[in-house]
Amino acid sequence: MKIGFVQFRPVLAEKEKNRERIVSYLIEARKRGVHLLVFPELALSGYFMTHLELSELAENVPGETTGEISRVCEDIAAVVSLPEKEGEKYFITSVLLRDGRIVGKYRKSHLFEGEKLLFSPGSTGYEVFSLPEAKVGLLICYDWWFPETSRTLALKGAEILCYSACFIKPYAVRAIATRAVENRVFVILSSRVGRERGVTFQGQSQIVSPNMEILASAGEKEETMKVIDIDPKEAKNKKVIELSDLFKDRREELYLK
Amino acid sequence: MKIGFVQFRPVLAEKEKNRERIVSYLIEARKRGVHLLVFPELALSGYFMTHLELSELAENVPGETTGEISRVCEDIAAVVSLPEKEGEKYFITSVLLRDGRIVGKYRKSHLFEGEKLLFSPGSTGYEVFSLPEAKVGLLICYDWWFPETSRTLALKGAEILCYSACFIKPYAVRAIATRAVENRVFVILSSRVGRERGVTFQGQSQIVSPNMEILASAGEKEETMKVIDIDPKEAKNKKVIELSDLFKDRREELYLK
Repeated sequence: MKIGFVQFRPVLAEKEKNRERIVSYLIEARKRGVHLLVFPELALSGYFMTHLELSELAENVPGETTGEISRVCEDIAAVVSLPEKEGEKYFITSVLLRDGRIVGKYRKSHLFEGEKLLFSPGSTGYEVFSLPEAKVGLLICYDWWFPETSRTLALKGAEILCYSACFIKPYAVRAIATRAVENRVFVILSSRVGRERGVTFQGQSQIVSPNMEILASAGEKEETMKVIDIDPKEAKNKKVIELSDLFKDRREELYLK
Repeated sequence: MKIGFVQFRPVLAEKEKNRERIVSYLIEARKRGVHLLVFPELALSGYFMTHLELSELAENVPGETTGEISRVCEDIAAVVSLPEKEGEKYFITSVLLRDGRIVGKYRKSHLFEGEKLLFSPGSTGYEVFSLPEAKVGLLICYDWWFPETSRTLALKGAEILCYSACFIKPYAVRAIATRAVENRVFVILSSRVGRERGVTFQGQSQIVSPNMEILASAGEKEETMKVIDIDPKEAKNKKVIELSDLFKDRREELYLK
């Protein structure tokens, strides 16, 4: 299975331009035989929207953008994050698209800082979606800080965790590799680059194996696409060594939720 | 508060010698004003015991060793790990000792590999123990792999997690720093060095701040004691930035246990 990330540099509030470039990357990736391509958080709109910009940029899901992008997703799945509007509420949403349809969507459930002033926390929970090649779960940025999120997805059978992020804290990238090894899953981290309203995003997108190997990585500044081959079945095996199975060895009765 | 680790090299099955050296370190640390000193997993006995050696080396808790070590723990707390015997059962146990008494004990609840053939899994759970200077929790080696263990202790108010380990896997040390930042607690990792029955232990003991800074660290081979000053109150503050509090932002209703 070929998986990848686009370390993307969206232009704030330039939705059509960003969408065009997302579509271009997907067409290129499809030619290269990629099965799953992950874009960063709010790739469609940029991050530091004002309330007015948000109200103009947000879309329903399904909506114009999910329709337009899913149409180019022939035999390739895309994780695209956008500001979602439902009634009077806004959400930071990741959508899994393939073959002209929405396979699943996730609304960010842990909102970070100023996001709390613009968006509502999502309550879609952590659902696992089946692609022909693998089972995937979606997470967004600040979610990494809560080990329960990736754990929940892994316990439900996710083999690949797709993180869409706008990281500004230095340790997020180091910590996210732990999410792979503690659950024995693959992690695709698509983290954006560029600068908005005085804040620099730190990139360093990466793909991590269930053994915590960094299979692909990008720097702090460049927009780039990286693609690698994996065998998602590796994530089905929770054994770290002969007699030690990470899931069978759990002691739920001792854990506090 | 002064906290530290001894990156120790126990001699397999030489209990009296190991105990003498543990006592020496504690006397030295006490002179330096240390409040909490952590030793590695099975520091008293060494790791790769045969069943016969285990039956000869294991002790009750309280017992001879906890009595002898706690007597030198005047105004200093020690985390010492030893093979515990209760009836016909054996446990890998960490004991928190201070001022001539046992403050608390923890029996390793996740057994790794061959340990399953010699020991019983502990069911003490994850209890927080109060020292005059801070609240601490005890964990042992393979426990690191289960984020629920450190999470449970942090939710119960632990400010310092004391890991006693015999690490042989390369990623454990990288991953353990995540336990500090995801819970905003201090982590003391005491990992042993040396070689037993053909296996080399990897050391790399460290102390990590709630911000994931490595405050002290040791190499892969040397026996050494490292001590630093911290303010354990830092671990009470779960805010990673103004409006984002790691514990208040949790969404328990969405997590699977």
